[in-house]
Amino acid sequence: METMRWEDGVLLLLDQTRLPGKVEYIQCRDHVTVAEAIRSLRVRGAPAIGAAAAYGLVLGVLAARPRNRQELLARAREVAEVLASTRPTAVNLTWALNRLLHKLEATPSQDTRELTELLINEAHAIYQEDREGNKRIGRYGQELVPPGARILTHCNAGALATAGYGTALGVIRAAQEAGKRVSVYASETRPLLQGARLTAWELLQENIPVTLITDNMAAYLMARGMVDLVVVGADRIASNGDVANKIGTYGLAVLAREHGVPFYVAAPLSTIDLSLDSGKDIPIEERRPEEVTHLAGIPVAPRGIKVWNPAFDITPARLITAIITDQGVARPPYRESLAGLFKA
Amino acid sequence: METMRWEDGVLLLLDQTRLPGKVEYIQCRDHVTVAEAIRSLRVRGAPAIGAAAAYGLVLGVLAARPRNRQELLARAREVAEVLASTRPTAVNLTWALNRLLHKLEATPSQDTRELTELLINEAHAIYQEDREGNKRIGRYGQELVPPGARILTHCNAGALATAGYGTALGVIRAAQEAGKRVSVYASETRPLLQGARLTAWELLQENIPVTLITDNMAAYLMARGMVDLVVVGADRIASNGDVANKIGTYGLAVLAREHGVPFYVAAPLSTIDLSLDSGKDIPIEERRPEEVTHLAGIPVAPRGIKVWNPAFDITPARLITAIITDQGVARPPYRESLAGLFKA
Repeated sequence: METMRWEDGVLLLLDQTRLPGKVEYIQCRDHVTVAEAIRSLRVRGAPAIGAAAAYGLVLGVLAARPRNRQELLARAREVAEVLASTRPTAVNLTWALNRLLHKLEATPSQDTRELTELLINEAHAIYQEDREGNKRIGRYGQELVPPGARILTHCNAGALATAGYGTALGVIRAAQEAGKRVSVYASETRPLLQGARLTAWELLQENIPVTLITDNMAAYLMARGMVDLVVVGADRIASNGDVANKIGTYGLAVLAREHGVPFYVAAPLSTIDLSLDSGKDIPIEERRPEEVTHLAGIPVAPRGIKVWNPAFDITPARLITAIITDQGVARPPYRESLAGLFKA
Repeated sequence: METMRWEDGVLLLLDQTRLPGKVEYIQCRDHVTVAEAIRSLRVRGAPAIGAAAAYGLVLGVLAARPRNRQELLARAREVAEVLASTRPTAVNLTWALNRLLHKLEATPSQDTRELTELLINEAHAIYQEDREGNKRIGRYGQELVPPGARILTHCNAGALATAGYGTALGVIRAAQEAGKRVSVYASETRPLLQGARLTAWELLQENIPVTLITDNMAAYLMARGMVDLVVVGADRIASNGDVANKIGTYGLAVLAREHGVPFYVAAPLSTIDLSLDSGKDIPIEERRPEEVTHLAGIPVAPRGIKVWNPAFDITPARLITAIITDQGVARPPYRESLAGLFKA
């Protein structure tokens, strides 16, 4: 099962809003379709939307058939702006778009064909590097996992959230591959149930034992001594180690600390935003009330109820035991250790 | 809107599984219907199921038309056993049933008509005392509520969870009636969404400002400084002050402590079980996986997924700022203060 696939100038995106009931790919032939897919969470997860946006930029440039370098660059910048505006929190989105734009700008060629080839190759590189990076995250991370560990994860930081293998689920997969016989608790992750719909589905397919809980059961699960470690992904990490991730992550980090349970974050360097001093600077997306008040179109709350629906929260660095990246494991103090990973 | 009503030998129960979409009363003419209603949460909330069970016992005795005192007592005990077996955690259920049985046993009359009248009157008394007790909980509790307080509550400890007025929502109603202009955050309370379906609905009807959140948003809400106090109900309180309440309560208590937010529990003395030394002795009901895997009848998780679904958790006394009862406010140490309320 692939999250996305590039096929003859078309981006095929697995429509994650239909999972686990239906496995359907949408065909994206322009950047508008990709932008809509990102906005409506057909593709989600910071690394996955980075890769999808990169392909979206390629599609937007191809569709415009630019006649010269100048037109191509103008078009690329315009398309990047549309794609970047879809979701504010995950930094991989702008990271991937900027990587393509910088590649273009740094290549003096006037040949539009050469430049579009360059874009396609750079998008492929982002996709491929993400897959390989996640394998490395898995290798580094699994060393932190004791044999037989009962692992709690939140939302979906799996193959579906990335170009493949996953970040948090990459650590779990690697631990399983290393023969550690782990088991997983997946918190369902309201409002959009990525834990129930996506993580449970991924792990079932891999025969990794998984038990589903509602988000509000995690505290009691820890109090009963049923969790050995927590591992989650990230949408953006500030230079001090503060982590923006799916709403509910911060609460799990507080609970993990209360119960003496290690709390790990797994993410590639492309999720780390060294331009931000702390989590205070990370923009938090607030989404439509209907995500909370309705399920599959059915109302589950009274009409007219006011809703607060932040899609992410900020976990302060002090609650994070370690950040597992594709370049190694960072420990506190993160300002030094994260910067060190970039230098290496 | 009444949670239940006794009318000419029939118990009318508001079917809370249909709220907020439909307001429907089911007619209970025997204890089996009442037992089913309690088991399937058509009526829920510790004080409400206590009162409903009392009426259920009356219905079971009436339906059997016992010919003498001995038959009546045997029947009453048999019916009480059926009703008591419906749900294990809330102590009000057995408290109410035992109160009726003790009343019978303490009355030497041979007149079955007199004895059934006695039962009906005792059931009415439980119902009426609960309503009045909740008004007192409200009066005691509202003194703890600062003007303009932003109050987080979980599940539904409102009029719907009691014979009327509510416990936690009784405190909120009383604060509002005292002109304190409070506002409320209602956590939706997965799996069965009593916060979204019932608390939001009750508060909307009373024009008390209410905002709905998913359970996993509470931590970030507190981190943003948007909560001044938490107040919840209880299903059973041990003599040391440990509280069993809807799953998710314990996590909120940990988070409240982390953020310096007072955490209050509101419950009548009938919820306090002095026979239990601590929360460890409180039985925790685990319910069907389908409550988690389905929402409004729609599957939201892959088929065959394993589920852990405890309906309640235990909040240790050390995390509770005060317990607001119908006989006054108990403060730590609770072993002394709770015992004192019973003596008074």
